[in-house]
Amino acid sequence: MSLLRDNGPLSRAQLADRVEVPRPRLLAELDRMVAAGRVLEAGPAASRGGRRSTLVRLAPGLRFAAVDLGASSIDIEITDGGLDPVASCSEVADIRSGPVAVLDRVSELLGGMRERGHYTRLDAIGIGLPGPVSFREGVPVSPPIMAGWNRYPVRDTLARAHDCPVVVDNDVNVMALGEQHSGVARTVEHLLFVKIGSGIGSGVQHHGHIYRGAAGAAGDIGHIQVESDGPVCSCGNFGCLEAYFGGTALARDATAAARDGRSPALADRLAERGALTAVDVGECAAGGDSTCVTLIRDGGHRVGQVLATLVSFMNPSMIVIGGGLSGLGYVLLSEIRSVVYKRSLPLATGNLPIVMSELGPRAGVVGAALLASELAYGGGVWPHPS
Amino acid sequence: MSLLRDNGPLSRAQLADRVEVPRPRLLAELDRMVAAGRVLEAGPAASRGGRRSTLVRLAPGLRFAAVDLGASSIDIEITDGGLDPVASCSEVADIRSGPVAVLDRVSELLGGMRERGHYTRLDAIGIGLPGPVSFREGVPVSPPIMAGWNRYPVRDTLARAHDCPVVVDNDVNVMALGEQHSGVARTVEHLLFVKIGSGIGSGVQHHGHIYRGAAGAAGDIGHIQVESDGPVCSCGNFGCLEAYFGGTALARDATAAARDGRSPALADRLAERGALTAVDVGECAAGGDSTCVTLIRDGGHRVGQVLATLVSFMNPSMIVIGGGLSGLGYVLLSEIRSVVYKRSLPLATGNLPIVMSELGPRAGVVGAALLASELAYGGGVWPHPS
Repeated sequence: MSLLRDNGPLSRAQLADRVEVPRPRLLAELDRMVAAGRVLEAGPAASRGGRRSTLVRLAPGLRFAAVDLGASSIDIEITDGGLDPVASCSEVADIRSGPVAVLDRVSELLGGMRERGHYTRLDAIGIGLPGPVSFREGVPVSPPIMAGWNRYPVRDTLARAHDCPVVVDNDVNVMALGEQHSGVARTVEHLLFVKIGSGIGSGVQHHGHIYRGAAGAAGDIGHIQVESDGPVCSCGNFGCLEAYFGGTALARDATAAARDGRSPALADRLAERGALTAVDVGECAAGGDSTCVTLIRDGGHRVGQVLATLVSFMNPSMIVIGGGLSGLGYVLLSEIRSVVYKRSLPLATGNLPIVMSELGPRAGVVGAALLASELAYGGGVWPHPS
Repeated sequence: MSLLRDNGPLSRAQLADRVEVPRPRLLAELDRMVAAGRVLEAGPAASRGGRRSTLVRLAPGLRFAAVDLGASSIDIEITDGGLDPVASCSEVADIRSGPVAVLDRVSELLGGMRERGHYTRLDAIGIGLPGPVSFREGVPVSPPIMAGWNRYPVRDTLARAHDCPVVVDNDVNVMALGEQHSGVARTVEHLLFVKIGSGIGSGVQHHGHIYRGAAGAAGDIGHIQVESDGPVCSCGNFGCLEAYFGGTALARDATAAARDGRSPALADRLAERGALTAVDVGECAAGGDSTCVTLIRDGGHRVGQVLATLVSFMNPSMIVIGGGLSGLGYVLLSEIRSVVYKRSLPLATGNLPIVMSELGPRAGVVGAALLASELAYGGGVWPHPS
């Protein structure tokens, strides 16, 4: 079914060529899926000589729900069996309002999409959470920014509410998966995906498989120390990457620059709106405000310092930058590039592209839909379910 | 054959229980190996009811050569088919004298061991080199401390000289493999092995498989920057880990401490021997010299800083410290532990042991012998030969 998802309709003969199960078993399995209504016969295939094979395709009624929970947002996409979007919705939501409130709201939004006819039943749900996740158990584990979520049974709650299988993973892992399945990293062996949003995280993929580490905490780079005598971080340590950069740090620094007169453009916006975000910094930088350009450069420099270390250690095939702050564009990207290419080992950077996400804000839902489909189709995204 | 290597003699029935190939194919394969003289029949096995099975074991004449090339040493071990050592030799050698001189000397040493009757022919050679290696091609790639070795055909040279298959890998990867096969990391899923010798490197294993990265450079942590305004490093950058610690840096700092009067104990030794090494620092520290204790603590602190970053990123199941400077013992280890446990994410350190290598100086040859045996037996150490 993964083959039909990624290739569209295929003949039984083409399928038999591409999978490694014996032909009789494949055909029996296909008959079973046709009987279950998940695969449809779609007329005769072009002849290859000999008896004509039948085209099969995924049933048009297959539906997956992809849910991307951010620190301050809910994004949902309903897709068909081939992962093409059928409907989507997004709204602001505070993850700190707790699992009951947030998951109730997710279920309400899904219910609304069902009422509007976008699905009648879901075949699976994939959901990404902004914190470490025990993939095996489907629960968040000691998530630093998700008060009240620790070990909350996210998977089982959604599975009961929607009567379908559910898969839960860390949001950055999910974005990395999306980018590798249908974004810029399609042919990449060892991917390092870096999300720069309110906070900063990363997702690692080896040969198309998410690497989760011993406790599901792999990739959590936001609290790596970049200066031992740096500013205090929300985690209680000093000089963490997130204390220097990310949406929260940038809003703080922008507000300071507005107040102390370094940036007239930011001061105008602060007076007008009462608060500043990373978007304001990006727009003022694009408008030529030198303080804003410097803020972005300084942040990119800090991210580059950490990535230079990780590149020497991991020797990835590609780095993809995603998340909300990737909207800051080429000023950010060029600073990251210059630090990594200067600081990492030449052998590790020789063939290393550092690029922006192709899927942008959709990376999370694309990855979540992929995880949902793998769960439903029994695919191989996770060989090592640790 | 890997099963016979790791378990000793087994009956055909026991083998059939433990491998996933159909029984007739296994038995035919065993017959083929008996005919080739690699496996011997060793009498009847204990009855399990029904027809009595035959015990088989590895032929006693199987021989592997394990070669561990360091920056300043050659260590060789000849093992039998079960990887038990048959003979070994070690000598000082400068890797910078180039591949022709060093590999000729390796071949001479091997020849001497053959003449002394330790083997008649080799079934395979495994060799670890102190630099990045293209595993697929069996050549070193841009090795920073191995002048003249870049892309030298190490594998093919040794294979021609000894008429057997040869496998070449990075020395730290090889040590990590040894430690996971027969050292302290036997049951570990995600291993981070850190070698602190003249320089500092690391080897990563996931599920028993070496992780090499896109260009074979993974684990090369010696030139990660720990202070942006730190001392200049041999690589030309500033503040690299190796500019602070490792055998070379420690000898430099010890000499300075002897000369400027901070350490009378080191001054005495310098006057007596003309030069100082890490061993002197360790011995003086054990003798109560506070400057030497401080030198070790400071070095451990720098290593800990880098490992704290890598732990947050990789979330390993265990860290093993090996290499010559692990002889500095618990002063070094306790400093590394305190920094990592304080600086990394709690979720990533909750169940993280940080321990000394169990194999010590033998880790390299044990790993090299294992690689050689996997090559000869067709085992599965490398599913992804990148």
